[in-house]
Amino acid sequence: MPVKEVEKFMIIGLGIFGSELAIDLSRKGHQVIGVDSDRDRANRLKDILENTFIIDSTNLKGMSTLPLKETNWVIVAIGENEGASLMTVGILKSMGVNKIICRSLSKTHEYILAAMNIHDIVHPEKEAAQQLSHRLTYNLGKEMLFIDNDHSVTETLVPSWMVNKRLADLDIRGEFKVNIISVLRDENVSKTKSKVDIEKKCKGVITPEFVFMEGDIIVTFGKNDDIKKMMTANL
Amino acid sequence: MPVKEVEKFMIIGLGIFGSELAIDLSRKGHQVIGVDSDRDRANRLKDILENTFIIDSTNLKGMSTLPLKETNWVIVAIGENEGASLMTVGILKSMGVNKIICRSLSKTHEYILAAMNIHDIVHPEKEAAQQLSHRLTYNLGKEMLFIDNDHSVTETLVPSWMVNKRLADLDIRGEFKVNIISVLRDENVSKTKSKVDIEKKCKGVITPEFVFMEGDIIVTFGKNDDIKKMMTANL
Repeated sequence: MPVKEVEKFMIIGLGIFGSELAIDLSRKGHQVIGVDSDRDRANRLKDILENTFIIDSTNLKGMSTLPLKETNWVIVAIGENEGASLMTVGILKSMGVNKIICRSLSKTHEYILAAMNIHDIVHPEKEAAQQLSHRLTYNLGKEMLFIDNDHSVTETLVPSWMVNKRLADLDIRGEFKVNIISVLRDENVSKTKSKVDIEKKCKGVITPEFVFMEGDIIVTFGKNDDIKKMMTANL
Repeated sequence: MPVKEVEKFMIIGLGIFGSELAIDLSRKGHQVIGVDSDRDRANRLKDILENTFIIDSTNLKGMSTLPLKETNWVIVAIGENEGASLMTVGILKSMGVNKIICRSLSKTHEYILAAMNIHDIVHPEKEAAQQLSHRLTYNLGKEMLFIDNDHSVTETLVPSWMVNKRLADLDIRGEFKVNIISVLRDENVSKTKSKVDIEKKCKGVITPEFVFMEGDIIVTFGKNDDIKKMMTANL
């Protein structure tokens, strides 16, 4: 069994979140059907997705024309309009669809989703807001995963005192209680007349012999305060 | 110098993203001013934030009444309305505000932001969409940080074959090329008559003597395929 399998997704609501999701799932090789009541939004994705439907998802009659039986997951990606999101979920449930993922719009919205037994909920705005708030508070890297209130996995530019040194010669765990998980390094991917496309590639689990280079992005785990101390150390 | 410092933020646009950000920054002890043209949105946060203003941010005259000189960062959190977002940023720039963070609404929107020299951009919907797409493809944990296309840091439920075993007795790195970074474990935080609040606490960098328990969330680093193999192994 291969790890990646082709699945069939239906995405209802093709705003920024819904269309990004539809495009990304298609790129990964899945079959994606997009649904929106707005003709322009649906048509914009016509050539990228398996199929698009211009349908008002709060209307039971319209919804019954969709190939719901052939999809593995229905993702309700509607933003802003809580009523429309709930009506859509209600119609899906009444039609016997069970694998539903819904975008969260507010606490009340989630309360009603829970009453309908929908527990697979995504919080695009909330998570991005927490991420930004955390970054502004700790002034750490741009990309991070909070492990709990005090700990995170953070991507930051390698501090200058690590450059050209071997990992084995830097007692980073002893000195700062920080764990270096991996490193991202620039690789020239393609070069045309007008620009060079550079991609950061992950060096996997690094060995004690690994030598840091200027411009490396280090992926670290530790307490936020400890990571910040390591980043701002002047050795 | 403490690692956390109180900063002064102004957040323009108090929809889901803007208000979550305002609340989170306030909770972390910062001074936050919220701005929205909608009275209800502004008033909802009146008692939580330092101050709220009901102002149309696309109007220069209104904007000149804001205490912009006393803020460290202005975050333009407006969603959906690209024109309003750009007008707001333009007015801020014309007033000499330089530390601006803007929410991304589309590629064209970002192109114009770049022309105005705004490079600190957040992508709430795009990042959440990529995260969900990745999770649906690899069927990994809910919380993850992509390191590159192939590697990620992922939080997943501990597989049953690890439960009650010492880390030293499980050759996880050798067997799966996966690194266990840390573990989150439930802790009873408070218990009232009606409910028990349980919080997951990070166990920091774990030692070889660490014993996994049922319900632990393990934080792992590795190739997506390797993490999936480890999770679905039947040992």
